[in-house]
Amino acid sequence: MMGGGDVERLIQLLSRLPGLGPRSARRAALTLLRAPQTRLIPLAQAMEQAAHSVRTCSVCGTLDSSDPCSICADPSRDHSLICVVETVGDLWALERSRLHPGTYQVLGGVLSALSGIGPEDLNTASLLARVSSGEVREVILALGATVEGASTAHWLQEKLAAHDVAITRVGHGVPIGGALDVLDDGTLAAALSARRPAQ
Amino acid sequence: MMGGGDVERLIQLLSRLPGLGPRSARRAALTLLRAPQTRLIPLAQAMEQAAHSVRTCSVCGTLDSSDPCSICADPSRDHSLICVVETVGDLWALERSRLHPGTYQVLGGVLSALSGIGPEDLNTASLLARVSSGEVREVILALGATVEGASTAHWLQEKLAAHDVAITRVGHGVPIGGALDVLDDGTLAAALSARRPAQ
Ligand SMILES: [Zn+2]
Ligand SMILES: [Zn+2]
Repeated sequence: MMGGGDVERLIQLLSRLPGLGPRSARRAALTLLRAPQTRLIPLAQAMEQAAHSVRTCSVCGTLDSSDPCSICADPSRDHSLICVVETVGDLWALERSRLHPGTYQVLGGVLSALSGIGPEDLNTASLLARVSSGEVREVILALGATVEGASTAHWLQEKLAAHDVAITRVGHGVPIGGALDVLDDGTLAAALSARRPAQ
Repeated sequence: MMGGGDVERLIQLLSRLPGLGPRSARRAALTLLRAPQTRLIPLAQAMEQAAHSVRTCSVCGTLDSSDPCSICADPSRDHSLICVVETVGDLWALERSRLHPGTYQVLGGVLSALSGIGPEDLNTASLLARVSSGEVREVILALGATVEGASTAHWLQEKLAAHDVAITRVGHGVPIGGALDVLDDGTLAAALSARRPAQ
């Protein structure tokens, strides 16, 4: 028994978070318990608040405290340019980069026979609705450089082919600033096949 | 903006936990937000519950949902044997090992001129009270093998010298199963000076 049932339960739930093992869950619990007013209660309240406010955007599928989300509701974004990503985490990564001026479509996964994820499991209805409206000029497929990502991109490309919309894919290759000797063969192959004339 | 203010705030508070950087805080937030009913709300409630129930044991200084704590209140523990540790985390480590049949005293730190921690900052009053009662036969000093740990042990030893109680220190040296070549010089020195005739 460490600190009674309430402490044990807190550690147990914390240790289920990705990135926290039992050891760091205990350290996190101690940090929180040592400062109940300034750390533990504020975090608990932020969680309750998020649990009650956060929902899935009915347009793009991201998580947000409003629906439509703050991106879909933003008139300064380019709504004719949709970037298709696998997860909300991918959307967040692109938002941090501030490189994408358009909106998003979060599929919620990629086609995978192994994981039993089929076309009906992916969030594509609202993408097709938006493309069918004729107001979309380009769909960027920003899926992972995996077999599943590639086959999902291919499947989406066919699905959208009947519409008057440009379909592009993000490039794959050597990350900027990255050394070649730490890359896996798949990335090296993608980098080689995406080669262009040197300038 | 990632998911509106509520999501941002959740990520920000999570990223302040030891062991979680911004990247793993985002992953943790996503994991929680994807399962509000089964993950986010239970964790929030466990935190609220712990914030309201957990207090510092008035006998030994550990954190527990009861006072005296479950260890101090346990009649099957040996109350004549007190193990002095620096932190609640150290107490938890010893409890997990199930090696200590007695009770504890959590100092809450060690003497450190650098950190401005003096004798008055350490939780020793209840240790002296227990020792003065005459019901304690041994105090085990289980402090870190650091300069501060050693000087705190020395200071406690002097403080307890007037009482009829055995004072012992945990041994320092090569961890069981540990290789010598990864140990720092201090541990090697401790291991050498603690050498005994081979059997
Ligand atoms: Zn949206
Ligand atoms: Zn206690």
